[in-house]
Amino acid sequence: MEPPTLAPKSSKTGGGAFFMDKQQYLNNLRHSCAHLLAAAVTELWPDTKPTIGPAIENGFYYDFDFSQSLKRALSEEDLPIIEEKMRQLLPSWDHFEKREVSPEEAKEIFKDNPYKLELIDEIVAKNEPITLYKAGNFEDLCRGGHAESPVTEIGALKLLSIAGAYWRGSEKNKMLTRIYGTCFPTQQELDNYLNQLEEAKKKDHRKIGQDLGLFVFSDLVGKGLPLFTAKGATVRRELERFAVDEEIKRGYQHVITPPLAKVDLYKVSGHYPYYKGTMYPPMKIDEEELILRPMTCPHHFMLYKSQMRSYKDLPLKIAEVAQQFRYEKSGELSGLTRVRVFALTDSHIFCIPNQAKQVILEVLDLIDFANSKLGFVKGQDYRYRLSLGDRKEEKKYYKDDAAWDKAENILREVLTEAKAPFYEAPNEAAFYGPKIDVQIKNVSGKEETAFTVQYDFVLPQRFHLKYIDEDGKEKQPIVIHRSSIGAIERTMAFLIEKYGGAFPVWLSPVQVQIIPIADRHQDYGQKVLEQLKSANIKAEIDKRQESMQAKIRDAQNQKIPYMIIVGDREQNENKIAVRTRAGQDLGVSSIEDFLTRINSEIESKA
Amino acid sequence: MEPPTLAPKSSKTGGGAFFMDKQQYLNNLRHSCAHLLAAAVTELWPDTKPTIGPAIENGFYYDFDFSQSLKRALSEEDLPIIEEKMRQLLPSWDHFEKREVSPEEAKEIFKDNPYKLELIDEIVAKNEPITLYKAGNFEDLCRGGHAESPVTEIGALKLLSIAGAYWRGSEKNKMLTRIYGTCFPTQQELDNYLNQLEEAKKKDHRKIGQDLGLFVFSDLVGKGLPLFTAKGATVRRELERFAVDEEIKRGYQHVITPPLAKVDLYKVSGHYPYYKGTMYPPMKIDEEELILRPMTCPHHFMLYKSQMRSYKDLPLKIAEVAQQFRYEKSGELSGLTRVRVFALTDSHIFCIPNQAKQVILEVLDLIDFANSKLGFVKGQDYRYRLSLGDRKEEKKYYKDDAAWDKAENILREVLTEAKAPFYEAPNEAAFYGPKIDVQIKNVSGKEETAFTVQYDFVLPQRFHLKYIDEDGKEKQPIVIHRSSIGAIERTMAFLIEKYGGAFPVWLSPVQVQIIPIADRHQDYGQKVLEQLKSANIKAEIDKRQESMQAKIRDAQNQKIPYMIIVGDREQNENKIAVRTRAGQDLGVSSIEDFLTRINSEIESKA
Repeated sequence: MEPPTLAPKSSKTGGGAFFMDKQQYLNNLRHSCAHLLAAAVTELWPDTKPTIGPAIENGFYYDFDFSQSLKRALSEEDLPIIEEKMRQLLPSWDHFEKREVSPEEAKEIFKDNPYKLELIDEIVAKNEPITLYKAGNFEDLCRGGHAESPVTEIGALKLLSIAGAYWRGSEKNKMLTRIYGTCFPTQQELDNYLNQLEEAKKKDHRKIGQDLGLFVFSDLVGKGLPLFTAKGATVRRELERFAVDEEIKRGYQHVITPPLAKVDLYKVSGHYPYYKGTMYPPMKIDEEELILRPMTCPHHFMLYKSQMRSYKDLPLKIAEVAQQFRYEKSGELSGLTRVRVFALTDSHIFCIPNQAKQVILEVLDLIDFANSKLGFVKGQDYRYRLSLGDRKEEKKYYKDDAAWDKAENILREVLTEAKAPFYEAPNEAAFYGPKIDVQIKNVSGKEETAFTVQYDFVLPQRFHLKYIDEDGKEKQPIVIHRSSIGAIERTMAFLIEKYGGAFPVWLSPVQVQIIPIADRHQDYGQKVLEQLKSANIKAEIDKRQESMQAKIRDAQNQKIPYMIIVGDREQNENKIAVRTRAGQDLGVSSIEDFLTRINSEIESKA
Repeated sequence: MEPPTLAPKSSKTGGGAFFMDKQQYLNNLRHSCAHLLAAAVTELWPDTKPTIGPAIENGFYYDFDFSQSLKRALSEEDLPIIEEKMRQLLPSWDHFEKREVSPEEAKEIFKDNPYKLELIDEIVAKNEPITLYKAGNFEDLCRGGHAESPVTEIGALKLLSIAGAYWRGSEKNKMLTRIYGTCFPTQQELDNYLNQLEEAKKKDHRKIGQDLGLFVFSDLVGKGLPLFTAKGATVRRELERFAVDEEIKRGYQHVITPPLAKVDLYKVSGHYPYYKGTMYPPMKIDEEELILRPMTCPHHFMLYKSQMRSYKDLPLKIAEVAQQFRYEKSGELSGLTRVRVFALTDSHIFCIPNQAKQVILEVLDLIDFANSKLGFVKGQDYRYRLSLGDRKEEKKYYKDDAAWDKAENILREVLTEAKAPFYEAPNEAAFYGPKIDVQIKNVSGKEETAFTVQYDFVLPQRFHLKYIDEDGKEKQPIVIHRSSIGAIERTMAFLIEKYGGAFPVWLSPVQVQIIPIADRHQDYGQKVLEQLKSANIKAEIDKRQESMQAKIRDAQNQKIPYMIIVGDREQNENKIAVRTRAGQDLGVSSIEDFLTRINSEIESKA
């Protein structure tokens, strides 16, 4: 078995280096448990081929080739059986025994397992020792990292789920069966973790999105391609219009460019070699090779270059809610968080180098403003990360130490001057310059990079960007790449989880539910509905043959901010009774007073 | 030479059957002139291979394979030389002589011309006679249709342009050189036509779009992929928001779906075999084959199917400003009118068959409303066309005469009831039902199909669409496919040409230009600017060191509706002097009064 690896993405964006020792201890425990899983599986279905099984954040997995031993696909119902077998075997696992073998011996031992043979060849090629670890009756190819005594240390274990996974992660290889699990020193800790998982599931935007009918997926349409219902599209549209209108107010030039381009464009930009793996395949049209865009920069550069620019035009801020496409592997897709097409609130600010500081200050101000309107509190829900260049890296680092120093200093100065909460992360920059990452804490407290502000001195050179300076000479601008509220899909996922679906009024797909108490109140209810609609309030009426209580409950479940109840009294007095989704009774008021209240809430995005 | 054909698209959407005899006469004249062109070219460059040369609307063309005879590409400068040679040859062209030859004779005569040999084989395969027509010294393979006496009838001729064209229109074949020209019985008629062309060029949205800086194209991005500048994007955004907001007001459910899907989706819909030729090639992603969508119907059908629908939910109107992709051949691309990606204001209305009439009436009302806001006058700028099924057609006609009869009658009744100006066009329908086309007259008076309202009883069957009726039984809805303002790009092209770039105020990318008379008025001008901006008016200030007259002229050239001039008097009195782009002086007023005026104009979309 390969060495235990933590999933690199999680560890990079995770909480940092807290509890490193405890974490290492848990990794060893879980890696041991992965061995135990392989032992159980091969006891149950002897000709199964185990492949690789590392510890990961919060647990472990092991990938198996079940093709020969199981006449059907493994199902979730098999997990308790495997777990039981693991528990049966555990008492004999009092320690791991290590031995080193020759390549020939190793190949003889694993002669029926082509996956292990491939691993052995790789170890040999690297001139490393081949080690086997045995506990109970089960011996596996492994580099070590185990619990000292599995039987005493693994207090509680649980298998969690099954997924498909290509051998070595490549879709060219065979699809294997991956079993996920976790273990803890005590049952209490396992229970806590499972509770936490359960809670997170309830807050999961995929579940809430389904409950509230915000978006759906379709097998026929394809993976990672969400279809937004009218409700979901309303949230999206409000977010989009908010970003566009606010940016225009702040002097951005909002453009619209096509979501694809010739492959050549990405060869000029230098993106192609770095991003090819996550780009869609090219399409041949007539004599041209077109490709769906993975980023917007080159399109905006073409607009910049479409006319002569003077120093008087700078800074020039070209912005777009730009559709982008990423070839995410199907195993990495997740709700609205990881999709194959998304709309990024993107911008490229072309400026004279000495304008950079002021430009970035203004960008941070916009991000803070937008985040505050979305309800994210600075220093609490999000902070900044200064990602620095990896000067030893050859491929991902554009060799110009002085330029990097200068850019990194500017970013550091800006963050300090803006009194922004931030920390520094070495070796996290993109190839074309250092960047500021906006780190948002999700509903489970895990920090993720939502989007970035990128200082770029490389692409302006690649694209020969120019401006005519005061002295009449051609000079090169630098470019600040930035987002304001990130990718709309991803931001929606954050917001759905943050609010548990109970969006602030301005983002609510239905802002008011009108509830006639009896059939005879429907006409009056309809009149109220039309009055609200003509005032641009998103209102609906519930005309079903249900009790008022049931209608209120359903509106609350749908997280509709306001309910307007109309009965005899309201109808006679031409008034409305108002309740909030939190259950607060706001009493009886005129429609006009209610409109004043809700409009000011919408206006202020409270 | 092949028979003279009128480009089918133009003739189909053209003004109809007026002046048929005159048109036939002109076609014969121009087809003769195409022979004359081939004669001139082969005299000048003897080893050139003529291929095909039909008459087209307003002229003719001939495609040549110049590869052997010309060491360089033919250029526009060669056209006068060829014209001169045509005029030299014309006196000897007093009539055409026809003869019929055997396949062997024909192949001997054209043995050096593989294109003609291919045509001969086709004629032989169809068992048709092989005829040659000769005038002067030039004999060509041809089915006839000529002027009786070219020398007396061709009063004036002109070669117009050069283009590349694939042999038989297929990019798999060799690229040939196409020469376009026209001819008329008299010089006066030719002059009139050329004047008309010149005028049309001035009104051409491509020219105006460039002059006003609304959009650009980029070789590196690719053909048929416009990049909208901030100004063009503003017009686009206003159009889009207008359509979305108006549709939501009218009860449409505005959704957002991905611009691509699995190829399978279009196989289920039945579109794939019909539209494959105009779809982008598929992209393989993991185990899926994805394709950019050429239409939105299947996506909306998946949303319809994502939950159980009751008769109470119908009519259900799913709408979207939907990005769509068409593989238009590069020769057919034209500005914003024919592009490779566009955003269609699309909708699919799912309804019970007996709701169809009311639904379509409401659709026509929306179209009339939207057109009136865009400035298109019913019966003058646009009318309707009822496109009926071709019952003899096998591929393009879904065999169910009764269903076609019923649907066609409904559409006819609706058009009659709505007192809509319309005419009927046999055999123009799509394969899944009859449709109403919205025929808009462009700036040159030519009628084009802007978009359609489609009655569909076929796709609901293909997708097994269902609703639960009052009696508790599953039934099949029908679908009305419709647009409201068409494809945004195309509608922009219409509008740019209609208004010559002088958009109504609500669509103007810059609504007000502030012109400080001297430097000392800039601060006051800036104050006015900010006041307008905070009232959401799209205003700019011209701070250049230019005279007031020059600034006014530039603002007029940019078609900005209002100019605000500020000098000493305005500054002292805290007022503004207002002018219109038409040159009207509106005198001095307060900023508030001006805001009232412009806001009411924007509000009413006047």
